[in-house]
Amino acid sequence: VLGLDPDPGALWVDATAQGGGAGGAAAGGPARAAAAAAREHCRALIEAAGPACVAVKPQLARFELMGAAGWEALEAVVAHARERGLLVIADGKRGDVDVTAQAYAGALTSGADSPYGRLPGLAADLVTVNPLMGRDAVEPFVRAARAVRAGVLALVRTSNPGASDVEDLPLRDGGSVWERLARLVTELGAAGVGESGLSDVGAVMGATEPWHLERARELMPAAVFLLPGVGAQGGRVQELAPAFAAGRAGGLVSASRSIAAAHLAHGGEPGAAARAEAERLREAAWRLSDAFVGAG
Amino acid sequence: VLGLDPDPGALWVDATAQGGGAGGAAAGGPARAAAAAAREHCRALIEAAGPACVAVKPQLARFELMGAAGWEALEAVVAHARERGLLVIADGKRGDVDVTAQAYAGALTSGADSPYGRLPGLAADLVTVNPLMGRDAVEPFVRAARAVRAGVLALVRTSNPGASDVEDLPLRDGGSVWERLARLVTELGAAGVGESGLSDVGAVMGATEPWHLERARELMPAAVFLLPGVGAQGGRVQELAPAFAAGRAGGLVSASRSIAAAHLAHGGEPGAAARAEAERLREAAWRLSDAFVGAG
Repeated sequence: VLGLDPDPGALWVDATAQGGGAGGAAAGGPARAAAAAAREHCRALIEAAGPACVAVKPQLARFELMGAAGWEALEAVVAHARERGLLVIADGKRGDVDVTAQAYAGALTSGADSPYGRLPGLAADLVTVNPLMGRDAVEPFVRAARAVRAGVLALVRTSNPGASDVEDLPLRDGGSVWERLARLVTELGAAGVGESGLSDVGAVMGATEPWHLERARELMPAAVFLLPGVGAQGGRVQELAPAFAAGRAGGLVSASRSIAAAHLAHGGEPGAAARAEAERLREAAWRLSDAFVGAG
Repeated sequence: VLGLDPDPGALWVDATAQGGGAGGAAAGGPARAAAAAAREHCRALIEAAGPACVAVKPQLARFELMGAAGWEALEAVVAHARERGLLVIADGKRGDVDVTAQAYAGALTSGADSPYGRLPGLAADLVTVNPLMGRDAVEPFVRAARAVRAGVLALVRTSNPGASDVEDLPLRDGGSVWERLARLVTELGAAGVGESGLSDVGAVMGATEPWHLERARELMPAAVFLLPGVGAQGGRVQELAPAFAAGRAGGLVSASRSIAAAHLAHGGEPGAAARAEAERLREAAWRLSDAFVGAG
């Protein structure tokens, strides 16, 4: 999975050289100039590394930082990825309840009817959600996604150091908070298991602490695991084997900075370096999944 | 606090009567027509009920549903509220780590520098955040907000039934998940306590189960409590007394549907009914806080 996290300070495309920068106001202000550059950056990244990937994962925060112009860029980037045959994972980690969760689900996956006509939303294939608020914060996402054959990826055990502050807390009745979240994923996903044996409710499982993956697979046998944290955050594909026990599509290895900044680490032209790094990660994931899945 | 949750199906302003609706495409499509109507609705709501409130709380999901046009409407509504002297609470419940959390914090409170010039962001005074991912998911928001004299409201114990699924889980070492989150709020807020005795790190505490408030106040003596769930969700202002133990500004009573739809419950013109309901809630909160704060 190709992570799209356009940092305005580290884009391939230097729009400041094209009349942006301090003069950006002439073209609609800094946000509009930054959004245009982010859009071109993501487009180039998709052209370069997309063929080695199954999906793009735009990080919504990066686009929100540029306001309405950023959201326009996000819509354009998503459309471009879809043209190239890539799935789209809207990484927003939204979580809320009731009508608010429905609105987020409409915004990111299903769209929604309104008196003004159909609101299309971003129409992503998968969306990340935060389950802290409980079952009724995830259910509206599942319902909306299922209706349009999309899916949900709930945070279960993330890749950051702070995961130990809350997710790892041991519970009085046994297990930890994240194990309880894993059970919630399995319960909500039970009605959405398809012919492949995989469900439309998956989990975000950080790749930086792979010893959790075996237990996670026990608790969530049918869940697709989105595995961020490879590369820049220190995770190694070779350690993710348990994710693939559910089949080759059981693990979605996600990398952002290690692909977009591959030229800084390995030299060469940004596009070629990104493509090479994405291909290297894909090969590593496929070798690993072959060992589990057999002749696949 | 005046909640702004513009449901496209329940706006005061009927833009479909003005060439929107199925003909909305002529004016830029359904999303643009819905966003224009939502903007006018929020403007009218602020004019009517704003004078009885200290802040507006736009629900970001509702605006996201309309894509880039929705984000434009959000920016306009925030600007309008600020012109009217109201604080702005961006209710997005964002949560992520590292550079992603920084991007959200920039988008919603502090803005951010970029090679294209300063990205202003939404510049909200307070932002709601989701602490599931732990301390490093909240810290970047606190740092960014503190730098611009804004604040953070972390979810601690929310007003929905699903709060019992995760937030209420008892921990092996005593207390519950939400009590642990409360301690995190106090730790992160310690360096941000001002002359008033209140901190720039507060908590979202659902108003529907007020028996938690006393314990919450013990654990978070300096936190501002945002208290959603009054009215439509069943919470009653009269039961929120412990929130005000920290002073009159210790509790921010938030209502959305019960104000915007007051005319459906009580009759009359929408604006007048909204104003009356907002004034009724304010009086109830002030009577309550007077009892705690004294002559205040």
